[in-house]
Formats: sequence, structure tokens, C-alpha cells
Amino acid sequence: MSNFPRGFLAAGWNAGIKDNTLDFGVVLSERPASAAAIFTRNNFPGNPVIVGREHIKGGVLQAVVVNSKNSNVGTGPAGLQLARDMCTLSAASLGIKPEHVLPSSTGVIGRLPLRDKIEKACGEARSRLKTADFETFADAIRTTDKTVKTASASLNSGARIVITAKGAGMIEPNMATMLVYAFTDAEIASADLDRMLRVVADRSFNRITVDSDTSTSDTFAILANGLSGVSISFPESASDAFKNSSVFMPDVATVPGLDENAREFVTEFLALSQALARAIVQDGEGSTKILEVRITEARDKTQALKIARSIANSPLIKTALHGGDPNWGRILMAVGKVFDEPVPFEQLKIYFGETLLRYGDSSQLPELEKYLKQSSVVLRISLGAGQAEEKIWGCDLSREYISINADYTT
Amino acid sequence: MSNFPRGFLAAGWNAGIKDNTLDFGVVLSERPASAAAIFTRNNFPGNPVIVGREHIKGGVLQAVVVNSKNSNVGTGPAGLQLARDMCTLSAASLGIKPEHVLPSSTGVIGRLPLRDKIEKACGEARSRLKTADFETFADAIRTTDKTVKTASASLNSGARIVITAKGAGMIEPNMATMLVYAFTDAEIASADLDRMLRVVADRSFNRITVDSDTSTSDTFAILANGLSGVSISFPESASDAFKNSSVFMPDVATVPGLDENAREFVTEFLALSQALARAIVQDGEGSTKILEVRITEARDKTQALKIARSIANSPLIKTALHGGDPNWGRILMAVGKVFDEPVPFEQLKIYFGETLLRYGDSSQLPELEKYLKQSSVVLRISLGAGQAEEKIWGCDLSREYISINADYTT
Repeated sequence: MSNFPRGFLAAGWNAGIKDNTLDFGVVLSERPASAAAIFTRNNFPGNPVIVGREHIKGGVLQAVVVNSKNSNVGTGPAGLQLARDMCTLSAASLGIKPEHVLPSSTGVIGRLPLRDKIEKACGEARSRLKTADFETFADAIRTTDKTVKTASASLNSGARIVITAKGAGMIEPNMATMLVYAFTDAEIASADLDRMLRVVADRSFNRITVDSDTSTSDTFAILANGLSGVSISFPESASDAFKNSSVFMPDVATVPGLDENAREFVTEFLALSQALARAIVQDGEGSTKILEVRITEARDKTQALKIARSIANSPLIKTALHGGDPNWGRILMAVGKVFDEPVPFEQLKIYFGETLLRYGDSSQLPELEKYLKQSSVVLRISLGAGQAEEKIWGCDLSREYISINADYTT
Repeated sequence: MSNFPRGFLAAGWNAGIKDNTLDFGVVLSERPASAAAIFTRNNFPGNPVIVGREHIKGGVLQAVVVNSKNSNVGTGPAGLQLARDMCTLSAASLGIKPEHVLPSSTGVIGRLPLRDKIEKACGEARSRLKTADFETFADAIRTTDKTVKTASASLNSGARIVITAKGAGMIEPNMATMLVYAFTDAEIASADLDRMLRVVADRSFNRITVDSDTSTSDTFAILANGLSGVSISFPESASDAFKNSSVFMPDVATVPGLDENAREFVTEFLALSQALARAIVQDGEGSTKILEVRITEARDKTQALKIARSIANSPLIKTALHGGDPNWGRILMAVGKVFDEPVPFEQLKIYFGETLLRYGDSSQLPELEKYLKQSSVVLRISLGAGQAEEKIWGCDLSREYISINADYTT
């Protein structure tokens, strides 16, 4: 039995946007679906993001239409019109409403995608959709991601969910644009979906960093078409419980307002999203190892998150990680450079995996070095200031990052 | 005629801190000097910074004592005692008060410098000081800076000034620690010196970035012993005029409260400091070219500085600069990721040197690429929101940065 949710078709193909690789993808729900979406916070969003924000207001989507290999950002009024036309033309082909289409484009910034290629691909949308080929769809939305990223699950409730993601791939101009689409046949009202999406994003895709740069096209959307007949609620009380919890992942059994099906659904949605978020970091530009930064015993989550980001984004820590160098002075530096969150040195505990660092004991360094040479590393920093926890996933900084991002000429 | 100020002796030598390179330096004023100093904002300052903060409170210093090749950070009470003893022992040798000594240490974090080497070097301080050998002093405070950084001037007023700086050199653990000491024989009250130092720092050493990481030992100090007989005032009205000016460098002639000698002094102090700040960036880890980011037509300096830092610290811009790639989409991204400072795209103008970027005109790219291949690049971003200006100096990000910071094992 497939994990793919009922009532969705998916396809990917080559539309000749740039070369002969897969570059166009469409997912269609056989009926209008409840939907929620989160977009980039960058102040220069791509034109598809502008249109997507308009369309998501109604809380209903029926299709996702994406081109890769050329974004539609910094392209002015002609670009905005093209993003709208992408919706109108594909909607006409699919027999649905234009405002029920979520458009995305990813690739080089500042060049208008070739209109004739986009028009032709949109017109072919219906004829291309024969099966639920999410793998090919996920392949087609890649730029130069090395891996195709999908994850899916069949739940005990009978509902199913699939998530496709792209990110961290090299493109002109090499932004780690993140496009993530989740599709489920559970029945979830759009307000509930929106709350759940934000809870999940803050524990997955909003907790990763490759190079601290923020793409202009980031999108995370979910469509729920209800065809499984399984109804899921995610009320404000549940959302608040997540928000107010001091730990990164509260025990879902203790979250109020969720029945068994909802608990199962959100647990699985979180797990799949975290797996794909880690996959994006693993596939990060030049990444050779994944770093999980855990902050514990923080005063509150705000403090924990600031310090976690400072560590995960520090070039000196990322290069030390790359070299497998247990250079803990750099961790001290990165905690200390969060100027507005002073932490007493006496209370600071640094763990390499399970091992507590003994300050100034050089006999411990070979053990720490051995740990850092692994492909997946956990640094835990205990601040001794309270009970709050946060987590960020990052990666190392390698020569390949420089090669990918410098050795190319427009 | 030497530019070196009257009444200062300087020396540098090898004290065996780590190997046989120069690693210990002392500067002595023949009489107590007015002094001001600014230290790192890192919440884990080195022990010499803790002691230096205590000593500068009196507004008087007579000597600077520095060891390189091993910092004194994260070393606990024994480290703090060593920093105090550095002052007591060198003061005894020099025949001055311990609280008139500014201590500094730079190098690997977390290892206590060898006490016997430090004690011996402090005891030799007087006998080592034979001439005003600022070059050897500046050499001795380097870690792995490639260049020795000093700058000096004889002013028309008769006053002289010399500045020595170290920074951006590779050390274990490879922080771009910045130590900057200025010495002058002008007569300047410590309150005036303090005001002037902050004005100068905010237009030189506080406007550079190599990798966005903040050292635990950064120090910028000035000693004025008055032996030239030239008296300089820098009242609050002058300091306020700089602070309230919307431009990065107001015309010093228009600054109130300064006589001709003061105008000359602050102009020269600024020029020398900017030259050395640029030298630090030029010598930055793996740096192959220097980038000046100018923000113009900003609403205010706060907005300008945030956006300037976002651009100068963006790994994607730094790698594009390294490759000479006119990838202006990345500049758009870096302006746009300052979430709390939205700028309308329609008003944004990007200049490569003097050349205005024409969005979407690919025929212009070869010209821009040629410009970026130069060793010194100016990017000017005009926000169209007001009259304020700011400036940041940064550098590119190269494979050598990774090599320096990853390919070494403790």
C-alpha cells in the first residue's frame, strides 16, 4: 500500500527553462483542499511569493505549480504578471480556480523566466498528471540539490501524508532556497492547519541554517483534501501549549485539545518535517557533516535560540567542525558574542555528545577530536539559568562551499 | 625626524611563550599619561581585559604590556591572578604603579600561559626598553598576522602620534583578535580622550568585519603623555556633533568646540585608524580583496549600519566577491534579510564602484565582473529613504579561510 494520500496527482518534467533537466512540477488535488502556508521573511520576496500570499488568504488551494532553474525575483512588474499568469494558465489546464494555485519559482535571481516556456508548461499541466508521482515532482523542483527529498507515512487513523522538499542546492545565484510542500488526505480546517504548520515549522524548517543567508523564495505549504475521511482538529489550546512549553519538543500526550488521531498526525508531521529539515542541512552547500546545537537550562526560549543561532552560524565553529578540531574556545566566543544575553562562565557547561568538556584539561582533547570526526555531531550547551531548551541544525563550512559559491561566472 | 611621540619607549622580544618568535611587547611613557580604552563586548572577556577595565577607570596609564601566542581567556581564577601579576611585576621593573599598566594577551583560548615565562619577561621589561622601537613592539604582538601594522604622523601643531595594531591573524583558536594601541605626546584630558576614542573607533575599528565573530580580547587604547606641550580639547559638543551627524565622516571644520590643533589631531587620528582598520581587513584570514560597503540615502544611521553589516557578513556575497561574480541577486537578498528594515525595491539603487546596476540588463555584467576582479571593491547601496550614511569594510571568503581555520588539529 502506498503512503501517498488519496486524491492527489503529481508530476514533474522538463519544460526547457534552462537546459534538459527536470524543471517543472505540478501537484493537483482532485478537490479543493484546506491549506496553509508560510513564506520567506526576506523583504524582497519573489513574485510567486507575493501571489502565493494573496491566494493563501482564502485558506483553500487545489494545486501547486513550480518551476526550477530560474527564480522570478527582482524582475519587476513583468515578473509579477508572469507569476499571476502561471496560476491562470495552469488553472485553465487543470479546470480549477486560479486563486487555488500556489505558484513557486526557484533559481537565478533577476532574470525573467522565459515566458513561452512557462506558458507551454502550464498549458500541459493536466495532460502531464497521470499518477501520484511525488518522486519526480520532488526531483523537478530541485536546482542542484544532490538528493531528492520526500518523506511519507500512513497513519493508524487511516490518514496519509507526504512531504516533498528542496533546499540548500547550488543554483545561480546559489541561494539555499527552501520549498516544502506537504499533502494529506486528512480533513483539517484551514485555521487549524495554519496553527499546526507554524508549530511544525518552528521545530523543523525554521530551525536549520546553512549559511545564515535568507532566500527570497522560501515556502512551506500544506494541503489537506479530506479524502481519507479522518478529521483532525488543532485548536488554539494545542498551539498555545507548544508555544508556552519551555522544551523544544513537549510530550504530545500532554498537549490539550488533541484526540488520538490528532496526536498521531502532528507527531508524524513533525517527525517527517524534522527528517527533511535535517536532509536539507545534510545536502547543504559544501556540507560534509551535520551539527545539532542543543541549548539547555536557558532562562527562556528566546535566550536559548539566540545562543543556538550564534553557535550554528559562527564561521569559526563551522570550520573547526569541518576540521574535527575540538576548539572549545570558539564555542565560548560564540556564546559570549550574544551581547544582550550574558551567561556566567561558572555556570556554562559544554557537552560534546554525552561528554562534558573539562576546561583546560588537554588530556581530554583526543577523545573530543575523535567525536568531532563523526558525520553527525551534537553540541549541547547548558546555561545554568533556567529550564528552557532550544535546538538548531547546521552544518560545517568547507572549501566546497567556496567552490560552489565563488567559482562560477555569470 | 621621527614621527614617534616624545617620551615613549617601546620594545618587543621573544619570551618563549610558545616558540622562538617574538611574543612579548612593552611600551612605557616616561611619565603617567592620560588614557582611554575600549574593550571587547564579548560576554567572556579575557582576564587582561577584566584587569584593563579596572585600570582605565582612573584615566591614567603609563605602560602597555602584551604577550602573544597564548591568550588568557577561560582560564579561571589562576588566569585572573596571572593578569594582575603581569601588571605588578612589570610595574616593579619599570618603576611605575601597577594600576598604570594595561595588560593584554592574545592567542589560544583556554590554556593558562606559562607563569614562569610571563614572570621572567615582566621582570626584564625595563632592561629591554632602550629606544622607541614601535616596529618590533608591533611585530611582537602579532599572532599570525602576515603584516606588521603601524602608522604614525607628525602634526603641524608639533604633536606626534603613532598607532600599532594587530588583528585578523590566525592563531589557535584563530580568532581575529584586535589589539590597537595609540600613543601621542599631545596633552589631552582623559575624559576628552575617551570621547575622541569612541568617535574614532566608530569610524574605523568598529566598522570592520572579517567573519562576524567577536574576539574575547579586543582592545583599543590611547595614551597621551603631554610631552609635546600641545594641548588638545575634545568637548562633548564635538562628540555630539559626530554622533548626531547623518554622514559617516562629517567635515571636521564644521564640528564645534575644536580649535585648529584639535581639528588637525582628530583628522589625523581618524585617518591613521582607518588606514590600520583597512590593513586588518586586508590581512584578514584568507582575505584576497577588500570590500567597502557604503550605504547612502538611509533613513538613519541605525538602518544604514544594519544593512551594511548584513551585506559585509553575507557568506554568499563574500564568496561571490571572491570569485568576481556580479551576482547582484545576493545583494538584494542581503538587504532584504534585514527583516525589521524593509526597503522598497523601486527605490533601491546598487552601485558597483561608480556604476549604477541596471536590473535585468545582462549586457552590463561583463563590466561589473571586471570591476569585481579588482583587489579593492566598493559597493554602494542607496536606499532612497533619507540622508543618512554608513560604511563597513570587509573582505572576501576564500578556501584559505577554511584551510586556516579547519586544517589544524589541537
